[in-house]
Amino acid sequence: MSRYLDMVDSPDHVKKLTLDQLNLLAEEVRHEMITVLSKNGGHLGPNLGVVELTIALHRVFSTPKDKFVWDVSHQCYAHKLLTGRKNRFNTIRTTGGLSGFAMRAESEHDAYGAGHAGTALSAALGICAARDQRGSDEHVVCIFGDAALTNGMSFEALNNISHTTRRFIGILNDNEWSIAKNVGAIASYLNQLIRHPRYGRLQKDFERLLRRMPKGELAIKLGHKAEEALKGAVSGVALEPGTRQPGTEGRGGYGSSLIFEEMGLHYLGPIDGHNLPLLIDSFTYAKECDRPVVLHVVTRKGQGYEAALKSPEKFHGVGPYDLVTGDPIAAAPGTPQNYQDVFGLALVRFCQRDSTLVGITAAMPAGTGLKFLEQAMPQRYYDVGIAEGHAVLFAAGMATQGFHPVVAIYSTFLQRSYDGIIHDIALQDLPVIFAMDRSGLAANDGPTHHGLFDIAFLRCVPNIIAMAPKDEDELVDMLFTATHQNHPVFIRYPRGAGEGVAIKDQPRLLTIGQAEITQHFSQSGGRKVALFALGNLQRLARDTAAGLKAVGCDVAIVNPRFIKPLDEATTLLLGRASDAVVTFEDHVLAGGYGSSVIELYSNHGVTTPVVRIGWPDQFIEHASTADELREQYGLTAERAVAEVKARLQQRLPAAAVTALA
Amino acid sequence: MSRYLDMVDSPDHVKKLTLDQLNLLAEEVRHEMITVLSKNGGHLGPNLGVVELTIALHRVFSTPKDKFVWDVSHQCYAHKLLTGRKNRFNTIRTTGGLSGFAMRAESEHDAYGAGHAGTALSAALGICAARDQRGSDEHVVCIFGDAALTNGMSFEALNNISHTTRRFIGILNDNEWSIAKNVGAIASYLNQLIRHPRYGRLQKDFERLLRRMPKGELAIKLGHKAEEALKGAVSGVALEPGTRQPGTEGRGGYGSSLIFEEMGLHYLGPIDGHNLPLLIDSFTYAKECDRPVVLHVVTRKGQGYEAALKSPEKFHGVGPYDLVTGDPIAAAPGTPQNYQDVFGLALVRFCQRDSTLVGITAAMPAGTGLKFLEQAMPQRYYDVGIAEGHAVLFAAGMATQGFHPVVAIYSTFLQRSYDGIIHDIALQDLPVIFAMDRSGLAANDGPTHHGLFDIAFLRCVPNIIAMAPKDEDELVDMLFTATHQNHPVFIRYPRGAGEGVAIKDQPRLLTIGQAEITQHFSQSGGRKVALFALGNLQRLARDTAAGLKAVGCDVAIVNPRFIKPLDEATTLLLGRASDAVVTFEDHVLAGGYGSSVIELYSNHGVTTPVVRIGWPDQFIEHASTADELREQYGLTAERAVAEVKARLQQRLPAAAVTALA
Repeated sequence: MSRYLDMVDSPDHVKKLTLDQLNLLAEEVRHEMITVLSKNGGHLGPNLGVVELTIALHRVFSTPKDKFVWDVSHQCYAHKLLTGRKNRFNTIRTTGGLSGFAMRAESEHDAYGAGHAGTALSAALGICAARDQRGSDEHVVCIFGDAALTNGMSFEALNNISHTTRRFIGILNDNEWSIAKNVGAIASYLNQLIRHPRYGRLQKDFERLLRRMPKGELAIKLGHKAEEALKGAVSGVALEPGTRQPGTEGRGGYGSSLIFEEMGLHYLGPIDGHNLPLLIDSFTYAKECDRPVVLHVVTRKGQGYEAALKSPEKFHGVGPYDLVTGDPIAAAPGTPQNYQDVFGLALVRFCQRDSTLVGITAAMPAGTGLKFLEQAMPQRYYDVGIAEGHAVLFAAGMATQGFHPVVAIYSTFLQRSYDGIIHDIALQDLPVIFAMDRSGLAANDGPTHHGLFDIAFLRCVPNIIAMAPKDEDELVDMLFTATHQNHPVFIRYPRGAGEGVAIKDQPRLLTIGQAEITQHFSQSGGRKVALFALGNLQRLARDTAAGLKAVGCDVAIVNPRFIKPLDEATTLLLGRASDAVVTFEDHVLAGGYGSSVIELYSNHGVTTPVVRIGWPDQFIEHASTADELREQYGLTAERAVAEVKARLQQRLPAAAVTALA
Repeated sequence: MSRYLDMVDSPDHVKKLTLDQLNLLAEEVRHEMITVLSKNGGHLGPNLGVVELTIALHRVFSTPKDKFVWDVSHQCYAHKLLTGRKNRFNTIRTTGGLSGFAMRAESEHDAYGAGHAGTALSAALGICAARDQRGSDEHVVCIFGDAALTNGMSFEALNNISHTTRRFIGILNDNEWSIAKNVGAIASYLNQLIRHPRYGRLQKDFERLLRRMPKGELAIKLGHKAEEALKGAVSGVALEPGTRQPGTEGRGGYGSSLIFEEMGLHYLGPIDGHNLPLLIDSFTYAKECDRPVVLHVVTRKGQGYEAALKSPEKFHGVGPYDLVTGDPIAAAPGTPQNYQDVFGLALVRFCQRDSTLVGITAAMPAGTGLKFLEQAMPQRYYDVGIAEGHAVLFAAGMATQGFHPVVAIYSTFLQRSYDGIIHDIALQDLPVIFAMDRSGLAANDGPTHHGLFDIAFLRCVPNIIAMAPKDEDELVDMLFTATHQNHPVFIRYPRGAGEGVAIKDQPRLLTIGQAEITQHFSQSGGRKVALFALGNLQRLARDTAAGLKAVGCDVAIVNPRFIKPLDEATTLLLGRASDAVVTFEDHVLAGGYGSSVIELYSNHGVTTPVVRIGWPDQFIEHASTADELREQYGLTAERAVAEVKARLQQRLPAAAVTALA
């Protein structure tokens, strides 16, 4: 059966459909997303929530001339389907396929890319400023979630909008449940707006207005006439006696939207985000506004899919699932426990014995494994919203009082707290523990979510201790060890399943700055090669060792454990004893772990060749699996073996080059 | 003549003085600050503004049990004078002397250190959370300026306060003029509160109340009685007909303080910040509050010093000045123009010819030199408030539209935009230009203001171009070159006076990734040493060259110009041609420029010894001059010469160490 979706090759085609046809299109878009994501995984819930919103946007505005800036942009699947990418939609989040986020390189309809929350208002305001400088007339529409308002950058942007431009359209997509249950004063503020008794009445007025029009002509008639009606209906309620008078500049939207109004923004809402004609009217109205406006749209995460409506947090981001039941496709039997869960469960154990420990997350209880602490000891658990800067400073404050706060955070999001790490934690040498999940690749999500820079940006900072466990049991040892330090401690570990080792009953206190030699030289008489494999790259080292043994080398393997302080004695000893050294790291090579090894060798005059295996100096795209990317970029045993062989053969004559004139 | 200040050895003594005595104490504190700062320089304006506020705080609260958290903490001089540091106050900001900021290591009365804005609310909330976990009863008082509210982290904290603790005392020190004139919606919001006609009446009510009490007994009587009166006077006005009704929980302070109230904070104010009894009453009231409270205190920057009142921006932070006139002590004749001014003036020139250029600052027009653009072409100038995260994202948005935004920012503050640099600018490869002032040491200010990490945290990021000019004329060339790139460009240059070279009429377009050899080998037959001196360390290289020549070496000097992309050809050629290489950088050694040189050598099997001169792995304290610190930490020609000599003598036998068992 032919679908309306099949006819939509570009947003122009959306404009040609009737309201009824658009509602059918919405159904088809949902069906497509539910089907494809059952195989590929992805941000199902948020995308189901914004189908009507997206259709209405493309009905009213014209990309690529008009610019849509999606905050986080994990909710832009419908946008992708309507902007010429429907035929590739089944490739989303897979190798060579569409990205799960907006991406400028992917389409001219993606005005701005993202992956982190709270960036859209600022970027959109920049686009407005550019337009105003140029004197052109396109519309700039920023779609941001309620959780984005827990992020400080959104407020920095709000603070700047009204004195920077007269034309800015903000769409607050309020699903009352962002990644986890939204926290904080802003969340309860938005809830108050929605729960206000007048909201229901507003909706009814609208429904009535719409019902009076003949069905077929709706799409046509909803032009200027409905706009007028909207203005009346929406601002009308604000003018009723007993409510606040609008200011002289015509302020005063609906209800107590005072925060936005005090920020100089015209506020309209709340608006039912699944009511297409209402959305179309509202956007049409916003288009004509000659001052910044925020439309407060209320959507339901998972709308149109029972399973997702029932479990909004689970369906925020999912792996493959059963189409009928919504149940996740079970992991292959024997798949080890995820690092995040091992961490989360260990933290609960330690918290029970140590009253100085607390857990802090920036809206990621499930992703970081901190949900276990939330369940077991809610009074020791702090979810601060998508506020990574605050999370770290809050931890710093607690640490001044003898606590050991554990900040559980993805490596990529730690980038948002960098100044706090330097200026607050490290400078004051405070015992905050960072459990850095997703250090290394986050394959499906891609470059906005890889954690490939943390070693470089952390090891330049004084006073810190940085570790990487070889497996999930050592992660527990490291967390335990961290709780005994009086300095900042960072533990970096990867996304996904552990190595499948058992967790000891009693964790081990590690000696700070001491590496572990996991394989000694055999003294076979072959040329000696020492492999330093950071974190969970031990398997890669073992494969490399096998390859080198096959060509007659005598190989030792080290688990460095500590990025900082480096085990200088072991690193020097093995470096001096070897004919070649290899470092392995799930991190860029520039300034990474291998770089710290060659710094040490340089300082001590060790000239043993060092082959560094890690990620090159470019952004790494998304892919179906991390292994595919490792293969592509040469993080392989074959590459390591080949480079070692080349180095052992070629020993350049030093200073054999003619001097400069 | 003996002073009350001389009698105050600790805050306990403040509590023993009468109100009249406290007012005299305030005068003495001001006199002390004005006198000492005329020699040492410092944040005079902000400190003069908070004298009464600080005295009242120590009158009502008891540090170190109670905790004061000062935002930025550049306004804590009176606090230092009252907490046992008055005898060392004349050493402030000098080598071995008191810090210009709060510092935990300096005094038990400094509960939390800072130097950057917007961190205090979060840290103070962390301290409250620790107190609540522990069940103790100390007060936590956070003193933050109006400008801190333009920073997003303050809002992240506000969003978390009311559901985290019931006891939090915030003091909004509103001087209506932060570093530069405050910008944005929050600023105008606060202004509205202050300008409200009822504010004047509130003050008058209070004055009358106070005047009715016999003078001598004021201090005693102002206990609970005045607290009651305060409650009545302050909340009374909010209950007058015609104004908003307070909520059921007793909300509704004075005027339209709705932003704070919507955030769940009890708001009181505005309060005259130079009225000691009123401040004491207000703080006493806040002490008893069983829910979070914000006191809005209005102070005048520079209060008590005519010169500072007249020029608040100039006196925000000053160098030495004439005590009588307030005029700055003139720089020594022949002192070259500051880098910041050279940059600012060049940008104006380029903006006049290139309509794609705009300038963006985060509240630092004078410090960054962007004030020249503000004056010459205000429509091309954006001051976004102390909102470094937003500044960078705003620039990213403009850059997507064909603009070349120039973000003028200190290196240390760029740390606050790190995620935007990676996730927005570099990943999307946007042509934003960063003019990174204060890269390297900021001697008087100390570790919160040094810019010693930027090379390490930038060179791991793909797509970026990073440069450092050898002098102020090359800075102009680099800015000019940057405007011709379609990639992110970072230019790092130091604080203070340039090298004294003339600025060319016509800037030069540099070749990206090409170093400059400023001194070739003489082919004297001596052992060859190549010196790579980044940025303005050419003089250090020339001194080193002289020292090495004296011991018979043949020395070449390179101005690398580019940190990224490195000039690999020149670096390799000279490395291979030399018996030793020296790198110089005003940056930490871990992961810095020298590290990139040895990475290159390691990749290409170049084994020439490399001596790296830069800052060690520790936080560098403040001092009177950068030279003193360089001397102390070995960033000297003597050290470089000695290390080269040692390397040339000692060439370690490779792999001569017994293998591991």
